[in-house]
Formats: sequence, structure tokens, C-alpha cells
Amino acid sequence: MAAITEVLKWLETNEKQSVARLVDWLKIPSISTDPAYKGDVRKAAEWAAEHLRASGLIAEIHETGEPAGTGHPIVLATTPGLEHAAGPHVLFYGHYDVQPVDPVALWESGPFEPVIKSGEGGERIVARGACDDKGQVMMFLEALRAWKDAGGAVAGNIRFTVLLEGEEESGSVNLDRYLRQNAERFKKCDVCLISDTGMLSREQPAITYGVRGLTYTEIKLHGPNQDLHSGLWGGRCPNPNNELVKVLAQLWDKDRKVTIPGFYDSVRPLGADERAAWAKLPFSAAEALKKIGLSAEADIGEAGYTAMEREWARPTAEINGIYGGYTGAGAKTVIPAWAAAKVSFRLVADQNPDRVSEAFFAWCKDRTPPGCKWEFHLHSGGDPATVQTDSPYLRAASAAVEKACGKAPSLIRSGGSIPVAGQLKAICGLETVFMGFGLDDDRVHSPNEKFELGCYRMGAKSHAWLIELLRGMR
Amino acid sequence: MAAITEVLKWLETNEKQSVARLVDWLKIPSISTDPAYKGDVRKAAEWAAEHLRASGLIAEIHETGEPAGTGHPIVLATTPGLEHAAGPHVLFYGHYDVQPVDPVALWESGPFEPVIKSGEGGERIVARGACDDKGQVMMFLEALRAWKDAGGAVAGNIRFTVLLEGEEESGSVNLDRYLRQNAERFKKCDVCLISDTGMLSREQPAITYGVRGLTYTEIKLHGPNQDLHSGLWGGRCPNPNNELVKVLAQLWDKDRKVTIPGFYDSVRPLGADERAAWAKLPFSAAEALKKIGLSAEADIGEAGYTAMEREWARPTAEINGIYGGYTGAGAKTVIPAWAAAKVSFRLVADQNPDRVSEAFFAWCKDRTPPGCKWEFHLHSGGDPATVQTDSPYLRAASAAVEKACGKAPSLIRSGGSIPVAGQLKAICGLETVFMGFGLDDDRVHSPNEKFELGCYRMGAKSHAWLIELLRGMR
Repeated sequence: MAAITEVLKWLETNEKQSVARLVDWLKIPSISTDPAYKGDVRKAAEWAAEHLRASGLIAEIHETGEPAGTGHPIVLATTPGLEHAAGPHVLFYGHYDVQPVDPVALWESGPFEPVIKSGEGGERIVARGACDDKGQVMMFLEALRAWKDAGGAVAGNIRFTVLLEGEEESGSVNLDRYLRQNAERFKKCDVCLISDTGMLSREQPAITYGVRGLTYTEIKLHGPNQDLHSGLWGGRCPNPNNELVKVLAQLWDKDRKVTIPGFYDSVRPLGADERAAWAKLPFSAAEALKKIGLSAEADIGEAGYTAMEREWARPTAEINGIYGGYTGAGAKTVIPAWAAAKVSFRLVADQNPDRVSEAFFAWCKDRTPPGCKWEFHLHSGGDPATVQTDSPYLRAASAAVEKACGKAPSLIRSGGSIPVAGQLKAICGLETVFMGFGLDDDRVHSPNEKFELGCYRMGAKSHAWLIELLRGMR
Repeated sequence: MAAITEVLKWLETNEKQSVARLVDWLKIPSISTDPAYKGDVRKAAEWAAEHLRASGLIAEIHETGEPAGTGHPIVLATTPGLEHAAGPHVLFYGHYDVQPVDPVALWESGPFEPVIKSGEGGERIVARGACDDKGQVMMFLEALRAWKDAGGAVAGNIRFTVLLEGEEESGSVNLDRYLRQNAERFKKCDVCLISDTGMLSREQPAITYGVRGLTYTEIKLHGPNQDLHSGLWGGRCPNPNNELVKVLAQLWDKDRKVTIPGFYDSVRPLGADERAAWAKLPFSAAEALKKIGLSAEADIGEAGYTAMEREWARPTAEINGIYGGYTGAGAKTVIPAWAAAKVSFRLVADQNPDRVSEAFFAWCKDRTPPGCKWEFHLHSGGDPATVQTDSPYLRAASAAVEKACGKAPSLIRSGGSIPVAGQLKAICGLETVFMGFGLDDDRVHSPNEKFELGCYRMGAKSHAWLIELLRGMR
């Protein structure tokens, strides 16, 4: 029987064990942005390294940060003995860290106590990281396992370098340095493969050829040097809460366009044929909104673009967090000493994250309320990335998905950000193929994050098939 | 020697013990807005009742709330055996509860570990409640103690009813019912005396003849039924953080006037002679701002009025708290399901708190962002109050302050709110005399709240003198 047949059979008969392994991994609370979880993040890295070793790869834990060890570790694994093998050399990138879990009260089950529930689309696994990105990485890891156990060769004799990051959800602050320090190693690869994107719908798989960039800032407006009694001071001095909302409200004009001067200067306009192609895709903005409890009238955003165009090809400004004054129970008549907001911008080619955050800070300065002072902080950023739609690797990925799902994938973009793609292009000249299986309503970054086993199944088979098709390219 | 001379001597020689008693009281964390402190609030009430009993009054603890006991207790004390005595019957009102202490990190010493520090103006006591209102009530309590121990008669044979509330800092939610249920009792009084206001400066004592009203609301804007990933949803649906700041920013026009329709309709315009009298008062807006770390350019507020006029005679809208999305450490790329703000309004005669909050909620509704829903909550309110400047009691208080401080008090107003004054007027027909000794920079409601011993001294003597002068009115 052909190796791929055995591999696919293995994936079916071993699915329970595969999911059980994913559950083990999901139990480790690898929240990278919160220092309290540093030890758990490392545990999740070691767990992944062990899994890769069991599939026959050589896996190392690499320290990151300056000095080394101040960052979260990177898992780097390679297929042994294939240094001089013919055929493609694939860099697989994924991340094993997860987002914070708050508001924790809204979780129906513990974020790190994974449960299998049934719902629309069949069984799904519910936990933080179920989809983003442990679940998606697991599809690839189990395809490797299947090829070793049933396919008769580690990774089907395809050269792989596997890079699993632990800081993706906290801005990948150490990744750039790591990539530059190991650039020679990654330049040897032919293409990067990432499973951290979505399908168009449960029924319609997709290959993603573009992602948005990001710059994430925090601004703090300082007023009086102490909290004040709103009776004695109300009407007599600036209230940072009042003043901050008056400044931030100016971020958008009546067409919901961002008002920062030059913000759109380097945005590549959407081509007519691209818009036409997207219009043909089976997607309903109203249906998507219904899934998050909103009516069709909530289909708002930059004027002149459809929801899909706004997500895939237009930049945004979002207040991800705002806080100032008394936020506890009951009433406190205070004028606070300061107010703050976390403001991020999703960017599209060819916007530059650093230039945008600088322009935003300057824009705030121009609006400094009388007697107040700003404090600016840049959390993280990442370049937008679009990839060639005509590369042999993207064609191979499409064919693999079609064989695994029985349906040709749509070519789509994503509004999310995968900064590593831009970095690999800039530092190592690598193109990236995004082969992901998430759904719009997987609640990534939210309470009750889920990943449907149906999606997991398609993804694992697609990765198994991709290896088979890469073998044919030798 | 005259009784008053003995009383004043007692206050001087016993000051250490008086302050030690205040320290004991301040150690009890009677935060009324936070249910976690319910037991401590009661302890503070019992402490006050004990103090009053030791000065010869009959003190009772009255339960409040429906059902009784759900609210914080009221301490009610009366001078015994004077039911048929001639001369004035004075209702003293004060409160023994305190504001929350956050941000607790900014306290140089424990909020409930009172310390005596020296600084500008000499020694001061630092603790939550040092000034507002335990310290100010203590001036009266120790004057009573002095009259009993050195003056030879409980309260100098002046009829007093003492009402100490435990819910002033949490909206006095049960006071109105209590006053109505006991109206007959309070109607027997001739005047109300309150020590919860301030002096014009360390050198210039004052009698306050007007306070602002208040209505305190909380509004919550609901968008999607779950937190969303700002990459997948940014630009495709309403972000409650973005939308809330856009609505709240409309609360003020460019002249910093509140834009709610009809907001100013029942505001009594300031008289020319009142403005002229205030202009003569020794007050510098720039000096006051310097004390809270702000430059003169921070002297902002409703156009066309001085800082003093804005605080004393003009209404305001203040965002006391705002919160939505991710407010923890680091970055989280979330579009939150909701965003909220605590918004309060200081009111002047003849604005009505309930009408203002209703108008504000309607104003919000008119600005509901597409697909979003509002949740409105009214925390508390209180009527503005102005009192006659020509009453014999106000004249007696002025004379008492002049004798105690060697300087005639200025007649001022306050931007703060003392709702009980309006309630006593409406329910029992009582006028109120505000004889207070706080300072602008006492940090009431803020970290490191203080009360200067110099102020305490003037206040205790003034209360002792007031009793002496009331004796003369028999």
C-alpha cells in the first residue's frame, strides 16, 4: 500500500491519541505576556521538543533575549541525515505561547482544563490555545508522527526545519534578533510554512496569501500630580479621563477613516480584479456578525469598502484597552491623576509599523490638553506581508488541501498579523505559505476559545498530503 | 474662671489625648462602598457612640436599609434632660465612613495606619478619613468632651441631636428613608451644623453657605457578545472602546459647556454682587494649581467664569472612571465585548439630580453606535443647597470662628456635595450652617489624605466657642 495511504489511515485510527496529546499540551498555561507564567511557557516548549524527538527529529531548546534566558525559549528541530538530500527544504513556523485568559469569569470551563464538547460542526476542543496556535501546530506535529510511524521515514524524508516560538502573543520581542543571528541557517530553506490562519468557512478551506501588519502602543495622559476630589476640583482643572476621550475620539473621521496625517500614504490600493475575485467568495458579512450576536447594521468600518476588504486590505485603529480613575464597585467621586489607553493599528502593505506609531505619538502631542503631559510606550509591531500566488509551494499546498478536503481551497487574505512572515522575507528572503484551518468563530484571544475536530482532521491530512506532494518535487 | 476659658484650656492641655483618640478611630477601615468592610464600618459607628457616651450623651446605634441591617448603621445621640430647656436645639450631622484607598501603592504610609508628619503649616495627621470626615467630626466631639470635663455641663447645657452617618461616601442610599421615618424628631431642631467643608486658606477660615449637588451614573456600552481578535474583526464591527470615547467626547462643546439639552435650564445665574464679593476673596487659581503640580495654563473649565465661580456656582460633567478591554500588563489584541464609564455631574441650584441623569441617559441613547446596546446605572445623587447668610446661627458660627481663630471667616461656597443639607431642608425644613476647617490640598478622596493639627485646633476651639455663644442665645 502506498505510504500516504498508510499515513492517512494512521491519522484516522490514532486520532483519539493525537487529541489526547493536544489536551496535554493545552493544559500548560503558556501565557507569554505575563511574567508569572514564565516557567509554564518553558514547560510548553519542552513538551513540544519531546513530541518532535518522538517523531525522529533533533530538537533543541534555544534561549532568547539579551542576556540570553531573559526571553522565552525557541524550539528548533531538524530532520536528521537529510542535509544533502535533494528536493525542497521547508521551514515550519508555529508558536506554542497563548493569550491571557481574562475575563476568566466568562469561561464555561477552565481555560487550561481542555474539554471536548459537541456543537455546530460536531465535536470541538475548548481551551486557551485550542486553535491559536497549539491546535494548528499539532496538526503538523501529528502529520510528522504519522509519517514516522506509518510512512516509514522521518518526515517522509523531506528536509524540515521546525521553529516554534514562545513570544508570538507578546510581540515576538526577541525573534528578530534570533532570526538575524541564525540567518545563515534559515536561508538554506526554500519556503516557510505556517498554520496560524483560517478557512473561509467550515465547508470551504483556504490558503492565505496576505496578512496585515501591526503596531501596538500604550499612551498615558498625566494631569494633576494626585487624584483629586471631583467636588473641590471639578470644573477647575483638566480631568485626564475627560481629556483622553476627547483626544482619542478624533482618531476617526465621519467615514471612519484614521485621521493621522499620512496614515494612508503607503497603502497599496486594492486592484479591481482582486476586489472582483473576493466578491465571488462565499462570505456573508451579516452571517458572520450574527455569530457574534450583532445585527447586520453593525457592519461598520471604513466607508467605501466591504467587510472583507476592510479586514483583508485596509488598515485600522483600535482601542484594545482603556483605563483611568475609579473602576471598582460603587461610586468614587475622583478626578484621576492620569488616564491611559492601549491603541493598536492593523497595517497593510506597504505601511511601516514604526513610522505609524511615531506619527500617532506626534498626533497625540499636537492635541496635548492644557497643563497635561503624555507618556508613550511602544509594545510591539510587525510588517504586513503578501506572498506570491504562483509559487510551486503554494500550488503544492493548494493541491494537498484539495486532496485532504476533497475541495479546492479559496485564495484569501487575513486581517490578522503574522509578523514572522515579513521578517523571514526581509532577513532570509523566504516566502511563506499560510495553510491554516481556523474558523471565524473560534474565539481566539477570547473566552471559550475552541478548535473543531473536523478542522483538525482536515489540517492533519493536508499536512500529511503536503509532505507526500513535496516528495514528488524531489 | 469662665467656663469657656476652662474649656479652651482643656482643649490645649488635652490635645495629645484628643489626637490619640482620633488616631484610634482612623485605624478602623470604614469604607462604606465596599461590602468587604461592612464589619469595620459598624466598628467605627460603635467607636463614635462610645465617645459620645463618655461625653454624657445618650447614644444609640440605629440600623438602616430595607430590610433593616442591610445598610450601614447611623449613630444617633442626644443630650439628656434638656428636652424642655430654653434656647436653640442644634442637629449636628457628620459621617464616620470613608472613601476607598486605591491606588493604594501611592500611599506613603498605610491608609489605616495614621501617622503624624510635619510639613508646611506644621504637624498633620495622614490617613484615610483624617479630614473627610472623621477629623472634622472629631473637632466637635472633643469640644463636647471639653465642655463636659472642664465646662461643668454636658454640651454646656445646649440641646444637641448628633447624627453620624455611615454611608455618605457611598451615596447615602438609606439616609432619605431614615430622615423621613424620624422627621418629627429632627423637626424639633432649630438648625443643622455640619463640619465637612473647608477654609479659604491656612490663614483664612471660612463659613460655607452653598454646596453643589451630585448625580453619579455608570454607563456600559455592549457590542459583540464576546471579546474578539482585533486582527480578524478590526474594521468589520463596532469596537465598544472606540465607540464609547466617540460618544463621551461629545459631552462638552469647545467652551467646555455640557451639551446635554436643557442641562443649564434651571441653573441660577450668578449675581453681579456675588461675583464681585468672590473676586475680593484672597484666592489664586494659579497658586492652587501649583499645589497639585499643574501650571497656570491648566486653569481650564467652562468659558466665561473664574476658577472659583466654576467650582462654587457652575455645574460640571466628569468621567470619574473609564474601563474597557485589556488593561493588564503587556499587549492583548482584543476588541472587547463592552466598555464602561462612571460619569458624574456636579449640580447647582436649582438643578435636579434625577432629571439630569435621565437627560444624560437619553442623550447617550440618541448616540447609540450601530448594533450596540446601552446599560445604564444610577449610583447616587444629592440636591444642591444654598443657605441663608443672615440667620442668627450663621452669625453665631461666624463669631465663634472669629473668636477661635482671631480672624473673621470669609463667606464662601463649596464645589463639593453634602446632600443631607438639601434633604434636611426638604424633609424637616432645617437650614444648615457649614463650619469646616479642611484645606484645598488635604488630598481628600486621594492617597495620603491629611488633616493639619493647626486646622484641627481652630475647629475644636470654634466648636467650643459656638456652644458658648449658643448659651448666650438662651
